[in-house]
Amino acid sequence: MTGGEIFVWELIGTAILILMGAGVVANVTLKDSLGNNGGWLLINFGWGFAVFAGASIAAPSGAHLNPAVTLGLAVADKVEWAQVPIYFAAQMVGAFLGATLCWLAYKLQFDAHDAPESTLGIFSTGPTIDNKPWNVVTEVIGTFVLVFWVLASPTAKVSEAGVPQFGNSALGYAAVAFLVIGIGNSLGGPTGYAINPARDLGPRLAYAVLPIKGKGAANWGYSWVPVVGPLIGGALAGLLAMALV
Amino acid sequence: MTGGEIFVWELIGTAILILMGAGVVANVTLKDSLGNNGGWLLINFGWGFAVFAGASIAAPSGAHLNPAVTLGLAVADKVEWAQVPIYFAAQMVGAFLGATLCWLAYKLQFDAHDAPESTLGIFSTGPTIDNKPWNVVTEVIGTFVLVFWVLASPTAKVSEAGVPQFGNSALGYAAVAFLVIGIGNSLGGPTGYAINPARDLGPRLAYAVLPIKGKGAANWGYSWVPVVGPLIGGALAGLLAMALV
Amino acid sequence: MTGGEIFVWELIGTAILILMGAGVVANVTLKDSLGNNGGWLLINFGWGFAVFAGASIAAPSGAHLNPAVTLGLAVADKVEWAQVPIYFAAQMVGAFLGATLCWLAYKLQFDAHDAPESTLGIFSTGPTIDNKPWNVVTEVIGTFVLVFWVLASPTAKVSEAGVPQFGNSALGYAAVAFLVIGIGNSLGGPTGYAINPARDLGPRLAYAVLPIKGKGAANWGYSWVPVVGPLIGGALAGLLAMALV
Amino acid sequence: MTGGEIFVWELIGTAILILMGAGVVANVTLKDSLGNNGGWLLINFGWGFAVFAGASIAAPSGAHLNPAVTLGLAVADKVEWAQVPIYFAAQMVGAFLGATLCWLAYKLQFDAHDAPESTLGIFSTGPTIDNKPWNVVTEVIGTFVLVFWVLASPTAKVSEAGVPQFGNSALGYAAVAFLVIGIGNSLGGPTGYAINPARDLGPRLAYAVLPIKGKGAANWGYSWVPVVGPLIGGALAGLLAMALV
Repeated sequence: MTGGEIFVWELIGTAILILMGAGVVANVTLKDSLGNNGGWLLINFGWGFAVFAGASIAAPSGAHLNPAVTLGLAVADKVEWAQVPIYFAAQMVGAFLGATLCWLAYKLQFDAHDAPESTLGIFSTGPTIDNKPWNVVTEVIGTFVLVFWVLASPTAKVSEAGVPQFGNSALGYAAVAFLVIGIGNSLGGPTGYAINPARDLGPRLAYAVLPIKGKGAANWGYSWVPVVGPLIGGALAGLLAMALV
Repeated sequence: MTGGEIFVWELIGTAILILMGAGVVANVTLKDSLGNNGGWLLINFGWGFAVFAGASIAAPSGAHLNPAVTLGLAVADKVEWAQVPIYFAAQMVGAFLGATLCWLAYKLQFDAHDAPESTLGIFSTGPTIDNKPWNVVTEVIGTFVLVFWVLASPTAKVSEAGVPQFGNSALGYAAVAFLVIGIGNSLGGPTGYAINPARDLGPRLAYAVLPIKGKGAANWGYSWVPVVGPLIGGALAGLLAMALV
Repeated sequence: MTGGEIFVWELIGTAILILMGAGVVANVTLKDSLGNNGGWLLINFGWGFAVFAGASIAAPSGAHLNPAVTLGLAVADKVEWAQVPIYFAAQMVGAFLGATLCWLAYKLQFDAHDAPESTLGIFSTGPTIDNKPWNVVTEVIGTFVLVFWVLASPTAKVSEAGVPQFGNSALGYAAVAFLVIGIGNSLGGPTGYAINPARDLGPRLAYAVLPIKGKGAANWGYSWVPVVGPLIGGALAGLLAMALV
Repeated sequence: MTGGEIFVWELIGTAILILMGAGVVANVTLKDSLGNNGGWLLINFGWGFAVFAGASIAAPSGAHLNPAVTLGLAVADKVEWAQVPIYFAAQMVGAFLGATLCWLAYKLQFDAHDAPESTLGIFSTGPTIDNKPWNVVTEVIGTFVLVFWVLASPTAKVSEAGVPQFGNSALGYAAVAFLVIGIGNSLGGPTGYAINPARDLGPRLAYAVLPIKGKGAANWGYSWVPVVGPLIGGALAGLLAMALV
């Protein structure tokens, strides 16, 4: 697979992941949406099936959709280091594009919303209690579970050419959806489970840049936590997988 | 597969899709139903497993159940253009039939319901904020995700004879169910995610025609949006898939 | 497979189906249960995964667990008529046993419950509006969907020796679980979706016989509806499948 | 597989099971968590997908993660008795470690929580009505369903070398997740469904030992129930499976 093909599929897959992931939070948050106040389980199924959609589409590139996954795979020698920047760039561009599409899909609801301070949460994560070292710990643990699972589960054993394989049908990608729903259910309570630097940074940039009516601040002071925490978690998972698998 | 076989299986599959899809909204809407006020996640699982039931039954015809899917497949050269009208006709007749069956299953609850203005929503979609160009945009985005996924996911790669294959067991069709649940969770908030012209127009016609007690208006002024939006979304997905896959 | 083997596996499978199916309603109904007031989606996932558990265990006998399924398969020539009484008897005995186990699992909660008129609903279904002809229609439609799906979906095509096969792994039975969740979501609102004579009659008998503290009447006047409706629905599905598949 | 490999994979799998299982209860219980008051279905999906994550990772050791499963497999001659103590030890150490990781992930939320008497429920189960013989009955029934399913479902039939196999992809382990969600939905109401001695005893020990701010008593008087009940249920399932399968 060429670098160009990796770039295209990671970009499209991540765009669909963020369109749908940000979309479910928009649906629950914005007062004129049919899913308003739909609850935490709805949000988690939303993000999980967003991963399902994006990952099954991005199968040709291995469906990382997440710099922490790419880093963990590189640490575990499953991806060439030279390809890592291509993955990172595509994931960031895709995340920005997906956030923009979400805003367009919910344009009328954003315009009618009367609590702008709540709209950042549609795009990016934030902690319920702000304490950056412990917030990092939470993100490290959640991302470790994600990336170690990708490397250690039977999935990884049938991988070819450094690319995780989830079977030759779209349903195989339901496995990663169930895992992400599980992480949201169980480990998303303190920080909203970024577990993916692109998932958080791309949409935060979009929030800062797009002309969203009555928007608030993008909280750049917190923005490094959902980048650094997931990268540490992914690298630790890669190291443990190297040692054990 | 002959045109007659396509017609029969698309008709039955779409009838079951709409029977169950309209059914879950009836269950949540009508005051004497056990699922009354069951919430948005219930509605989405309802529509998703309605697709699962209808699509696994309609496997012989490729289980389009949706003119936007048929159009996208035709644009991407996966279905012959000569067959497209057969698919469209069967989907419309099936949707009308399914809506009628839903009304019969919930006949007592319709008769006892005392808020007729809310019953159109059981049959057809409507926007929370009426602005037709933006409503079209929302429907285009949601349908694009659906049809591009059908064409680009590993599913499509193992298709034969222009027919998407979801494996040789019923469980394979859970993939499309998860995708539809995901679209409902994430992109259904503004317009109720028609993402299928037959799903909206067939039941709207049934609502207008059937002797539903105390029914309201069928809102024909909006009826073109969930036809045009999904067709645009499906065609765009077909074009992008042609370019990339 | 001998009649004795059919009897044993159908009995065990149906017992687990009813233990878990009645169990989820006990959990939602009884005030000292952790799932009290858990909602309609919880009830449907409860019944769906009850089918999953019972059906994957009863795989050797074809996992009918339901006289309406057995009848539909017999009508469609997939089961020998001579075996039908064995299936029926095992399903009824299993359902009675499962209801008894449910009562034992929730013994303390039944004893502490202070609204005896609500406990029949844990064991057997009832309509929100009592009108027996229309209640029959609802049960016919719901059961038709179940049995026609069993006969027409790709599952049936790979059947051998008259026994539906859901693949050679337990996960295959998730297909029928998703279908049952879907029927509950969409068609369970008016009558509580018996869609299975044994599921309703066996536990009703158990309710009448067991020394449940402060129990109410067993509503025998309604008891024929969830027997006759599902049998009609199953037979119609068998006839249509014979004509089409 | 060597005893050392069994120990490592059972330890890691059980740690992830408990991290995520305790995590979802923390999310629902602790007032500063995003999933606060998320409901019983959220808790069950949380535990189910916790099993999915832990079991698919622990595939090399057969993914017991539960002394009652190990005992049932040994009774049914699927595991050597000499390996049983290795499984038990790894499961207990893993459960303790997972509970500790859960506390670290939710450290800020534990510190801010103002109802310490409710935090034991994050780690260990308890009955809604304290009556130990009947509480044991409930745990026996729930665990019997779990272990008999493992032994009798099609899963067991394709096992090799005494190790249950759920297919060669991670998705296969969704089967056991659905079963556990089902047991929680249906049989978890009276005692919170330990159905696993390590799941209850390991975290109870962690609760007693860790410096959790303002914690209450560990309720050791109840602690034998979720050990003895599941072991009885697992052994009974093993005996019945020996007789029938």
